[in-house]
Amino acid sequence: MITSAEYRQRICALRPNVYIDGEIVSRDDPRIEPGMNVIALTYDLAQDPQYEGLFTATSHLNGERINRFCHIHRSCDDLLKKQEMTRLYCRQAGGCIQRCMGTDALNALSVITYEADQFYGSEYHQRFLAYLEMFQKNDLCANCAQTDVKGDRSKRPHQQADPDLYLRVVERRQDGIVVRGCKAHNTIAPYADEIIVLPTRFLTPEEADWAVAFAIPADAEGVKLICRPTAFRPRQALDAPIAHFGDVESFTIFDDVFVPWERVFLCGERELGGHLALLFALSHRHSYTGCKPAASDVLMGMAALVAEYSGIADEDHVEHKLAEMIGVAELVYAAGIAAGVRGQPMRSGTYIPDVVFANVGRRHAGENIYREFEIVADLAGGLAATLPLEGDFLSAETGPLVAKYLMRNPAVSAENQYRCFRLISDTICSSMGGVSQIAGLHGGGSPVMESITLLKAYDLDQRKQIAKRLAGIRE
Amino acid sequence: MITSAEYRQRICALRPNVYIDGEIVSRDDPRIEPGMNVIALTYDLAQDPQYEGLFTATSHLNGERINRFCHIHRSCDDLLKKQEMTRLYCRQAGGCIQRCMGTDALNALSVITYEADQFYGSEYHQRFLAYLEMFQKNDLCANCAQTDVKGDRSKRPHQQADPDLYLRVVERRQDGIVVRGCKAHNTIAPYADEIIVLPTRFLTPEEADWAVAFAIPADAEGVKLICRPTAFRPRQALDAPIAHFGDVESFTIFDDVFVPWERVFLCGERELGGHLALLFALSHRHSYTGCKPAASDVLMGMAALVAEYSGIADEDHVEHKLAEMIGVAELVYAAGIAAGVRGQPMRSGTYIPDVVFANVGRRHAGENIYREFEIVADLAGGLAATLPLEGDFLSAETGPLVAKYLMRNPAVSAENQYRCFRLISDTICSSMGGVSQIAGLHGGGSPVMESITLLKAYDLDQRKQIAKRLAGIRE
Amino acid sequence: MITSAEYRQRICALRPNVYIDGEIVSRDDPRIEPGMNVIALTYDLAQDPQYEGLFTATSHLNGERINRFCHIHRSCDDLLKKQEMTRLYCRQAGGCIQRCMGTDALNALSVITYEADQFYGSEYHQRFLAYLEMFQKNDLCANCAQTDVKGDRSKRPHQQADPDLYLRVVERRQDGIVVRGCKAHNTIAPYADEIIVLPTRFLTPEEADWAVAFAIPADAEGVKLICRPTAFRPRQALDAPIAHFGDVESFTIFDDVFVPWERVFLCGERELGGHLALLFALSHRHSYTGCKPAASDVLMGMAALVAEYSGIADEDHVEHKLAEMIGVAELVYAAGIAAGVRGQPMRSGTYIPDVVFANVGRRHAGENIYREFEIVADLAGGLAATLPLEGDFLSAETGPLVAKYLMRNPAVSAENQYRCFRLISDTICSSMGGVSQIAGLHGGGSPVMESITLLKAYDLDQRKQIAKRLAGIRE
Amino acid sequence: MITSAEYRQRICALRPNVYIDGEIVSRDDPRIEPGMNVIALTYDLAQDPQYEGLFTATSHLNGERINRFCHIHRSCDDLLKKQEMTRLYCRQAGGCIQRCMGTDALNALSVITYEADQFYGSEYHQRFLAYLEMFQKNDLCANCAQTDVKGDRSKRPHQQADPDLYLRVVERRQDGIVVRGCKAHNTIAPYADEIIVLPTRFLTPEEADWAVAFAIPADAEGVKLICRPTAFRPRQALDAPIAHFGDVESFTIFDDVFVPWERVFLCGERELGGHLALLFALSHRHSYTGCKPAASDVLMGMAALVAEYSGIADEDHVEHKLAEMIGVAELVYAAGIAAGVRGQPMRSGTYIPDVVFANVGRRHAGENIYREFEIVADLAGGLAATLPLEGDFLSAETGPLVAKYLMRNPAVSAENQYRCFRLISDTICSSMGGVSQIAGLHGGGSPVMESITLLKAYDLDQRKQIAKRLAGIRE
Repeated sequence: MITSAEYRQRICALRPNVYIDGEIVSRDDPRIEPGMNVIALTYDLAQDPQYEGLFTATSHLNGERINRFCHIHRSCDDLLKKQEMTRLYCRQAGGCIQRCMGTDALNALSVITYEADQFYGSEYHQRFLAYLEMFQKNDLCANCAQTDVKGDRSKRPHQQADPDLYLRVVERRQDGIVVRGCKAHNTIAPYADEIIVLPTRFLTPEEADWAVAFAIPADAEGVKLICRPTAFRPRQALDAPIAHFGDVESFTIFDDVFVPWERVFLCGERELGGHLALLFALSHRHSYTGCKPAASDVLMGMAALVAEYSGIADEDHVEHKLAEMIGVAELVYAAGIAAGVRGQPMRSGTYIPDVVFANVGRRHAGENIYREFEIVADLAGGLAATLPLEGDFLSAETGPLVAKYLMRNPAVSAENQYRCFRLISDTICSSMGGVSQIAGLHGGGSPVMESITLLKAYDLDQRKQIAKRLAGIRE
Repeated sequence: MITSAEYRQRICALRPNVYIDGEIVSRDDPRIEPGMNVIALTYDLAQDPQYEGLFTATSHLNGERINRFCHIHRSCDDLLKKQEMTRLYCRQAGGCIQRCMGTDALNALSVITYEADQFYGSEYHQRFLAYLEMFQKNDLCANCAQTDVKGDRSKRPHQQADPDLYLRVVERRQDGIVVRGCKAHNTIAPYADEIIVLPTRFLTPEEADWAVAFAIPADAEGVKLICRPTAFRPRQALDAPIAHFGDVESFTIFDDVFVPWERVFLCGERELGGHLALLFALSHRHSYTGCKPAASDVLMGMAALVAEYSGIADEDHVEHKLAEMIGVAELVYAAGIAAGVRGQPMRSGTYIPDVVFANVGRRHAGENIYREFEIVADLAGGLAATLPLEGDFLSAETGPLVAKYLMRNPAVSAENQYRCFRLISDTICSSMGGVSQIAGLHGGGSPVMESITLLKAYDLDQRKQIAKRLAGIRE
Repeated sequence: MITSAEYRQRICALRPNVYIDGEIVSRDDPRIEPGMNVIALTYDLAQDPQYEGLFTATSHLNGERINRFCHIHRSCDDLLKKQEMTRLYCRQAGGCIQRCMGTDALNALSVITYEADQFYGSEYHQRFLAYLEMFQKNDLCANCAQTDVKGDRSKRPHQQADPDLYLRVVERRQDGIVVRGCKAHNTIAPYADEIIVLPTRFLTPEEADWAVAFAIPADAEGVKLICRPTAFRPRQALDAPIAHFGDVESFTIFDDVFVPWERVFLCGERELGGHLALLFALSHRHSYTGCKPAASDVLMGMAALVAEYSGIADEDHVEHKLAEMIGVAELVYAAGIAAGVRGQPMRSGTYIPDVVFANVGRRHAGENIYREFEIVADLAGGLAATLPLEGDFLSAETGPLVAKYLMRNPAVSAENQYRCFRLISDTICSSMGGVSQIAGLHGGGSPVMESITLLKAYDLDQRKQIAKRLAGIRE
Repeated sequence: MITSAEYRQRICALRPNVYIDGEIVSRDDPRIEPGMNVIALTYDLAQDPQYEGLFTATSHLNGERINRFCHIHRSCDDLLKKQEMTRLYCRQAGGCIQRCMGTDALNALSVITYEADQFYGSEYHQRFLAYLEMFQKNDLCANCAQTDVKGDRSKRPHQQADPDLYLRVVERRQDGIVVRGCKAHNTIAPYADEIIVLPTRFLTPEEADWAVAFAIPADAEGVKLICRPTAFRPRQALDAPIAHFGDVESFTIFDDVFVPWERVFLCGERELGGHLALLFALSHRHSYTGCKPAASDVLMGMAALVAEYSGIADEDHVEHKLAEMIGVAELVYAAGIAAGVRGQPMRSGTYIPDVVFANVGRRHAGENIYREFEIVADLAGGLAATLPLEGDFLSAETGPLVAKYLMRNPAVSAENQYRCFRLISDTICSSMGGVSQIAGLHGGGSPVMESITLLKAYDLDQRKQIAKRLAGIRE
């Protein structure tokens, strides 16, 4: 395992292929730092003895102690620990810990490369294991680039006006393949070591070229990261941990990128493309049963704190709104526990979470994220949108007046009251707040996608049989 | 373990103290039979080898094989099995299996009698264990009488105009105590062997007389069961399993009932009264994480079946309503699993489910029961309320016309289509449907009660600390 | 205008063609009486001077004073008065006043017969006006039979395995037509004078035979009313107005029924069939903006009363649930007012309500009916399902005990407390409650139908233009 | 009526008392301009002949043609026109038109100054009319400063640790009064001519000093506007109307401000303070029934447009989400119409909207604002949060690639697709989006406040009487 300093150094040494607002920038650009700070937590805290065995794991490849983000789940306990780890990290970051997507991609590949070899006699699994060993040894951080830009939603990949609207293989060479396309919504790509590419949906027989999975360094030739950074508002004097965090989203363009065969994990086996997509989604949705409860923890903490500061903590409607937030957090977390406890081993030995529980959990989180923001806004009142700016709070002329009039609970300092509202304002009334809402809704698949998965996975026939038996219907 | 025939025989031999609509009736009254049929399932199916170890358990008192409804949870696995058993039984009964309340009362007593002895040097636990051994040996079925009638809700027990509005000890004798009061909403009392009485809330120092727990035979002197039977509509010719089930609710009056000391499990230790009430509620709410998913299974089965028969199963809005029902069922079930997995042993060795998970699960069920009925009504259409009566379906004159016009899917017989709507109509458009809705909302404690429990049990301070740390607030 | 006694006498004189549970019954059958009692209100109260000009109107045909239920809306004020009248009547009946459907059918026919004559040179409008004059003069009560049984929902009328699954013309004679089919969910048919038949949907060119509208006496040859009566539970001694009300639903079979031309109002003009269906629905949905607020009034009244009796009226969660019910009632009512104020005259001179407002109002009612029942159940507690039966309340042996233990507010008599819970139990925990829920959801068209209507009627393009302008999109 | 140029000039001539982030700025600061642009619309469009009589009105003081924002409602039609005007303006501004608060304050004062004179023999009304005439003549724009900062919410004004936490009179002089305090959430204060101050709540006998209402120029001595500007993201090259709009919120400090008597409209008549607060709230909530439907129009337009561009407009779930938005917009609008139609004249001749309808309308808007944003986010997908920045879209190097991969509907230009997502991103994923959500929730009073108002205004007793009558309860 490496230190966060080593991680930062390694990232900053990458070839500049990051674009922000019309310019190419190096990775030490200050707009990228807030995202990098989040990932740095996963290197720092993994060294903390109190998290030993939780934030770290033992590699099933070689018995080495590794960062759990590099680990393949080999038991139900691994699934439960990953969920618990995710919640703890996200509480630290005040939001998404961002590194899980690489873990989820590795786990999905560990299953499907094995299956591919069984079906097609290919050698993907050995390649993957070699890659994994290198990955674990170097404690790499990976972005997972899954979602294609998809063009016209009513058309399939091969029906699009431009076939590149789903990433595809445009050339097969002796030493590797050339791919073209664009993957959207790639959080962490500009501060990840690796980009792991997976298909985004089930594919038809015409669509073998779109059935491709591989890993490349984030600065590989032809990769262009069109980036949109978002961070919590910076501070002048009233520094706070939250102010150092952010994320960067990448619109990742693969402009005829060469991938050597040893980094190709699926290529043309279109029957498995959809399964790979689903397996990643499954694992990622299970991640959400860890991170979304942490997001609820943070929002709930703000809500409870501002209620306390404002002297309304005992009001009945306040209590019931807090109790509602508890319900969201813990139902989602419970669904993740159930998904872990009912996890199943695949033929490769990898454990995957229960599909139904992982999906009802993720969906419930997605269906409630806006409601959670609404409750915080409700309890905080309009000041979350109208809070005087920091300069006025600090100014010799207006500062004392602002402090005088911000006062709610005289036992709490004006600075702490200001800090409380500042945290809330930066979280729910900001670009970052918008990103959190949208990520909470769509990240890992929006509620509609979970419903579709559930309808496929659930045994509705069994329920119909129950109704038939009770009704006396025999067929 | 006894057979259902033995159970019926034993119940029918009880002294007549059941009143229905102004008359005293014996327990073989046909209005009681539908309820008894539900309990009979728990004797019949426990004999079925396929459920061995799930519907049965091993007594920790003497290693005997017993009905799991008589068992004290001695491990997390016991908690999980009890939940699973409950779901399976309720699918059979098309609703509440009714016998769990006795189990939940026994488990709560097993903890509190032990605690009482530790605090007060009393001998309740030995008494309880002797009672439990007798209970297990005879495979008894118990009602739990907890909810007092409570009078003016804004007043405490000792403040009521009539002190009997909460059941209390009115006399202490050498051989036992005399109690007076009334317990409401006592499902199964008229077809249970035993009535176990527990306190309903926390008690103040003035309220020692209300801190009383005991067990008595259901026909004990002074006990009057004012009963309200509800059953699914009876059938003329189109018999169906559902038509044999029902329940009977008792307004159970304790008109100066004597209880011998060996059946008294708490008497005056008011500090423990509330804990006992809560422990029963906790166990009972965990039961709901098993039974409510089964209620959802039944409703979902009806909804899916009628959608199939009507040719609308593939419509998007239908699918998403089914997916919503899946979410209700499985989030509640997941919460129960998490409550079981995170169960904790008490000092008596009894395992109790996690408070937070059990309560968010039960509450979610309660908050969605009307919505589930709404979805079934939505997919079934108006016919659930306007279905021609059985006599007209069977009549030589009108039968063929009714059959002709009921037809939806020509591949399904008119009788089966009729049976499907009949099941739905009897379930959602009937007195029984009203009982199911209200029981689904209030049984085991309504959502408001779970919110109150959650607010007490949840570590909101931890969440406030998270917010403070992110905000940079130091105190 | 006639008296209710004349109405009852006229109905009871009809030829027996009502079937209940396998038997043909005359219209003085006690199972029909509760429905008839509801309609009787509309004859009795129309005589009451305090409602003059509101429950009565002036015929535009001849200036006669008529029952407003027989009136064609000739102004926005007529629309507003009809809505207000409906709310007042439904408060009296404790639910649906039932007679509006005839009014809505007449209004729809008044428009479409005129349009048909304009398009096709037919003479429907004169026929209709003659019928209307007779209708008004005799103060008739009409059922509107619209909803066909519809068979396989994924198929159109002419695609059904049995063409009769939508009512159609099977023979055209010189003196009239012969029709065959079945209309479902026909409230009041067994105690109405007339049945007015309308098409149920838009029709394709192949479907001219299904484009038929007409009126016949309820006992016409070939008409068979397969009836399902539902009433509030009867009382033994504690009589109450609610106990006299109920409804009867008819599955109305047209077994080759002859209709003379003077009573045929559409026959083959398939382009207008759908418009007629929609116009009736529009008018009927506007009726719902009057009746559903009254249903809310009744439910809200129960909720507020039981909260008062139980001593919880000041609790915050109780108040906010009542405030939620106020919102449902008054948003729906407001939508009806807006629909009336923005009503438009058609070429026949009939005013029709605004489509968008009528539909958002009706839909909001439908989306909240289960929630309203849930709130009543929430505030009433479990006793709504477990209330001792009347016989036990009245019995010399158990009565005093039941009275003692039902007591909540000592200032309210036991009988009144019992009456309060009895009303609630009969309303929300009964077959009638199920009918109310389902009628509240589906009557006049379920929420899905209103959404479809809204999507057609609403100017979404205008909103897209607003967005485009703000975005700087020029095309 | 003046032109927008005159308005801007007048505002920019005010004494600098605006503070932004620690600096005092003049009113031509670019951060204030987006707000001023919104108000400018109300001067420009009032000149447009197509809005004559709608955006303009006739002064009841002198028959002059005036801007309707300066008008006192003298009829139900005025109430309806004000609502309609508000919706039309807000569609232009893509959000809040901001100027209504002054109108609402004037209308409330027109009623209460009259009432005060009746009760106390004061001369407030004449003073007010003189002020109003000046206001109308100069076509002024007013901020209404109502919400006090309120300190500890569990304490009343006179119980606060610092009595200034509610604005109060600190000195009464012969020529006027001196006031001290701070009003929060004052949209438009830095670009308004006038600030009208009203009390925020009902007041007790000890609180006469807090019963004060007056108007002052926005740059009066002692007034300090601590401002927080928020605007839609600025554009580089892809200009768009939305990019020019924004708002500025002021934390308005009254640091011992002198107000001459002719501008004092209430001073010490504490019985009327609460009524004045409520009347302003009522009028402002009625304004919301105009502006919130426009906010829905804008959001709905975006949702419909992005669905069209993405090829998903015909998907069932998309349609039903749009239909849901229609429902929110039109129920709120209908409530405003009903409130106008049922408006009542006060003794001063001013018409006020119906309390119940105005409040159910405003509340429904507040309860759905987060849901509306959620739907837009749902239909737009993650790109609203991850859209490449404008510089990358315009760059020669990355622009063509971004354009290639943004393509959804080939018939729509890349620029227009980009513009569509840019609008959505700037609206729902931005600080401005946060402000819109919070203003939508709290502006004019949050849903909890409307519930409180409704519970006071609604005739629940009438509903209880309905229930009693049906139950047979006589008292």
